Amino acid sequence: MSVTGTRPAGRPRSERAEKAIVDATLDLIGEGASVSELSIEAVAARAGVGKTTIYRRWANKEELVGDALATLKAPLPVVAGRTVREDLVAYLDVMRQDSLHVRTRCIMNIAMSDQERHPRLYERFHQTAIEPRRAAMRAVLERGVATGELRADLDVELAMGMLTGTMLWYTKAASHGGALPSPDLASRIVDEALRGFRSAQA
Amino acid sequence: MSVTGTRPAGRPRSERAEKAIVDATLDLIGEGASVSELSIEAVAARAGVGKTTIYRRWANKEELVGDALATLKAPLPVVAGRTVREDLVAYLDVMRQDSLHVRTRCIMNIAMSDQERHPRLYERFHQTAIEPRRAAMRAVLERGVATGELRADLDVELAMGMLTGTMLWYTKAASHGGALPSPDLASRIVDEALRGFRSAQA
Repeated sequence: MSVTGTRPAGRPRSERAEKAIVDATLDLIGEGASVSELSIEAVAARAGVGKTTIYRRWANKEELVGDALATLKAPLPVVAGRTVREDLVAYLDVMRQDSLHVRTRCIMNIAMSDQERHPRLYERFHQTAIEPRRAAMRAVLERGVATGELRADLDVELAMGMLTGTMLWYTKAASHGGALPSPDLASRIVDEALRGFRSAQA
Repeated sequence: MSVTGTRPAGRPRSERAEKAIVDATLDLIGEGASVSELSIEAVAARAGVGKTTIYRRWANKEELVGDALATLKAPLPVVAGRTVREDLVAYLDVMRQDSLHVRTRCIMNIAMSDQERHPRLYERFHQTAIEPRRAAMRAVLERGVATGELRADLDVELAMGMLTGTMLWYTKAASHGGALPSPDLASRIVDEALRGFRSAQA
């Protein structure tokens, strides 16, 4: 996406405005605004642009918020080719690191909780941010099954749910005032899960 | 709690009013109101009582919502004494069944997502609804470790996170438009997890 791309000096004014609008949107959500409460007026005021500048780029609030949320997801680490364990730890640790940022947590809550009211927003967020990560983790597990490192009868979807769900459980608890996930949490989850996932001969 | 207790006919008027107020609160949240949007006025109007009737019983909105949410949690099944597997499946299946009710899902979203704004509400909900369930599951796992059915070095907190987190991952996906969790989901999660949790001799 152009809003996250780096460019040499001379970035056109429209691109600077776009970045200011996305930042303003994230700021307001990070300060606690729900999607329903967020107004294009408030975003425009915060970004120092006119409403028409926003409407030139985004048809409505949901699309703006969806694009803004998508810029927050750290790119997935490049992991293909190492052991299943290392790859899974790397992916889960991205989730842990994301959860340490208050703004990200605030915004993830929005993305998840406002879905019943803003289905298009959730759909967009799902496609741009969640599904690529799921596909990457699925590929690691399927590779493990193919090489025999993991059980031939492993239910890959269930395994993904166990790994991701456990990390979410801890990061969610942290966002509700519990302890922050410890730096080794990803490896502890993966090691515990792999006890069951590994094939007998691995 | 008196609001959930059953009593013979002749229930006093104050108790009927209390139930009407709790029901009105749950209705409004179930229809999509966030805690911020919910007003005592609206609850009073829906329940057919005066605002003073509400304030006689609850000091503020957070306490009312906290009590209302707590009434929604199904009581835990009585399971002590059977196998670890059966007990865990029973507990996880309560989570799955809870998730099938739209009103419960809507309300759980509120309880989880509004925590940053309404910490007292979340604290109350946590103490009355979440912590007793966690304690029950912890007891099952600790019993399994004590009897040797589970590994002596099992990290019980991590094991709880895996079981609960995996079920939450599926119920959350369902509430976001994904497939409903299949009736055998609890047993599939427990069987997969126990592959790793069991002691070698069990």
